[in-house]
Amino acid sequence: MNISEMGKKAREAAAVLATLSPDVKNRAIEAMAGILLENRDRIKAENHKDLKSGEEKGLSRAMLDRLTLTDKRIDGMAAALRTVAKLDDPVGEIHDVRVRPNGLKVGRMRCPIGVIGIIYESRPNVTADAGCLCVKSGNAVILRGGSEAIHSNAVIADLMMEAAIREGLPEGAIQLIATTDRAAVDAMVRADRYIDLIIPRGGRSLIEKVTRDSTIPVIKHFDGNCFIYVDEDIDLKEAVRIIDNAKTQRPGVCNALETLLIHRGVAADLLKDLVPVLLEKGVELRGDPHVCQLAPESKPAMESDWQEEYLDLILAIKVVDQLDEAVRFINEHGSHHTDAILTSNHGRAMAFLAGVDSACVFINCSTRFSDGGEFGMGCEIGISTDKLHARGPMGLKELTTSKFVVFGNGQIRS
Amino acid sequence: MNISEMGKKAREAAAVLATLSPDVKNRAIEAMAGILLENRDRIKAENHKDLKSGEEKGLSRAMLDRLTLTDKRIDGMAAALRTVAKLDDPVGEIHDVRVRPNGLKVGRMRCPIGVIGIIYESRPNVTADAGCLCVKSGNAVILRGGSEAIHSNAVIADLMMEAAIREGLPEGAIQLIATTDRAAVDAMVRADRYIDLIIPRGGRSLIEKVTRDSTIPVIKHFDGNCFIYVDEDIDLKEAVRIIDNAKTQRPGVCNALETLLIHRGVAADLLKDLVPVLLEKGVELRGDPHVCQLAPESKPAMESDWQEEYLDLILAIKVVDQLDEAVRFINEHGSHHTDAILTSNHGRAMAFLAGVDSACVFINCSTRFSDGGEFGMGCEIGISTDKLHARGPMGLKELTTSKFVVFGNGQIRS
Repeated sequence: MNISEMGKKAREAAAVLATLSPDVKNRAIEAMAGILLENRDRIKAENHKDLKSGEEKGLSRAMLDRLTLTDKRIDGMAAALRTVAKLDDPVGEIHDVRVRPNGLKVGRMRCPIGVIGIIYESRPNVTADAGCLCVKSGNAVILRGGSEAIHSNAVIADLMMEAAIREGLPEGAIQLIATTDRAAVDAMVRADRYIDLIIPRGGRSLIEKVTRDSTIPVIKHFDGNCFIYVDEDIDLKEAVRIIDNAKTQRPGVCNALETLLIHRGVAADLLKDLVPVLLEKGVELRGDPHVCQLAPESKPAMESDWQEEYLDLILAIKVVDQLDEAVRFINEHGSHHTDAILTSNHGRAMAFLAGVDSACVFINCSTRFSDGGEFGMGCEIGISTDKLHARGPMGLKELTTSKFVVFGNGQIRS
Repeated sequence: MNISEMGKKAREAAAVLATLSPDVKNRAIEAMAGILLENRDRIKAENHKDLKSGEEKGLSRAMLDRLTLTDKRIDGMAAALRTVAKLDDPVGEIHDVRVRPNGLKVGRMRCPIGVIGIIYESRPNVTADAGCLCVKSGNAVILRGGSEAIHSNAVIADLMMEAAIREGLPEGAIQLIATTDRAAVDAMVRADRYIDLIIPRGGRSLIEKVTRDSTIPVIKHFDGNCFIYVDEDIDLKEAVRIIDNAKTQRPGVCNALETLLIHRGVAADLLKDLVPVLLEKGVELRGDPHVCQLAPESKPAMESDWQEEYLDLILAIKVVDQLDEAVRFINEHGSHHTDAILTSNHGRAMAFLAGVDSACVFINCSTRFSDGGEFGMGCEIGISTDKLHARGPMGLKELTTSKFVVFGNGQIRS
């Protein structure tokens, strides 16, 4: 099937999805959860094919792990679907209504975007998450997973659509491009007659290619080089506890801490308490000259360390003279994902909030909270590092647009 | 000056603008209004150069009219600036704060987008409007007006910046690309290191070229083929009054009515009252076969009439059998700008609101209200026909993005 045919089918499905009641969509999502659980063995068998060819291709252990579907992970997929079914439906919500002097009531109504294309790599659970978030927000979705997970993605998408159609959803609601041909991605990002938004999730080169080639608006999901800045006014024990959590609780994810900035006034005292805690957990330290002097266990940091997303037990550390320098350094070297300040000073906390140009800016907590679930959005399609339309964790609302709605009773313009 | 240098200067200015207090920005905008009024003669002299070369190039009378700056129009520019100075400042507003079970307060803070590039044609007042809206929302702006208005745009931008710098705004806040070289547009839309958003306003070919070439997100401002659908339950007198206003009050603008759909049940009665009113105002009617039969004064409409933005005293008219057909027809043939239903039936009014996929959907009023000022937004940078980030009239809020802000008191993730 070619992209124009899929696109047409998706457009037709989108027109139907936009008008479905929350009940119908939620029943379909519950049914999708059920069918995945009922077909564990079939899913695991298809997943096994991917794992086998992945081994043959020599995928890394980490990649193979991300690819593997266990019973527990299938349970997790179904649970995520059920969480989404329980979330409030954003479609049709009317908000920001103002009454004009002539009596017109002008507001905005939330509505689906239309057809969303998602291009992703590796983890097959994205098929389930993205599929149900799009359907719940009234959008049709065209999925293009990585070739390494093609059998797993195909069986998940097929089962979900089987359940969805049974519950009254239109046929083109969720479609998967089931080919490993790279030309499919090229065709997809140029199908602007049919697709309204492209979301690429994956490595930097994939995202850059999609952005370059796409004639459709793209919301990018780049990596996270997260910073913490420790201000001079701070309870050192609390700082150590938060830094430890941000760096070591799950180092392989995008909201883990990668670079620590410390105010010169507390650098010696903080490092004295912090370094043993981190070393004990096997964290490698890379410091600027001042840090290397205070903590001789550190390796000298290179210029590239300030930009790097390690996704590993490595922490870059730098001493700064004041808040402004920290803010400038983060804006220049960070990835505009998630950055935090630790301080007991209110003015500097608020200045950091205003000054740091990132999707998520935190005061006095771990960067690890940068997550749709933790933010109370139920679930997320990813974390946008773009500024337009959606910034930070993207949930159901971010998969909608709005239209102005005007309630009149005969007004004409004079 | 090349685009990289302008871009760097804009980036530096944006960093300063993002932190300025509302007072400073508003004083600068008031000063911009003042300096334009004080320099009427200089502005008119520069405008005269554009008009002279426009005449030599054989620009149409309508184009020359749009280009002309009279005292009244200069007053209008200054008044628009003063309106913007009085609007609430959107930057720094924190909204949608929710308290999580662990005590984290998660909200969103409105902040500037950064550097905005605006590519526009013809009317020199866009230089003033766009410049002050961007500054007020904390953004730096790079303007690229059409070659036909180059002297007018340059003097307006120069004067505004002179006043702005005197009031403490950074030098790169408003920059104009003062060359008629088309390569400048190509360079601008690829300067993704420096520019965060491109807004093209103008003809379809300009917008399509920018969209195709840009590596920066684009918010398109396409034309308006506005529809009114007259339902079977309607006060005919009221319908005539609204249709007359929507078509004839100012036919040359994007929110004027272009196509009328009428429910079969009221077609004969409505046309009997409506046709004389429109003919008296010189409106040419183009109808489907049924309309031509009921109103023999109509010319037969061609297929292309249903898509056309006349911007003139011409109205296409078609009879439909029911609401669903009207909604489908509008979604297929309209330009997703502004469409209205006239009906006394609540259920059909709400179904129209939900079903029509346009930036602005109205019940029982003239399409001419589709305007930032009329919506209570003070002023607008244009009307987005895109779905992402901003849809419909774009005011100050639409020139901002948001970041998630999280207020913690020591939370770590378990």
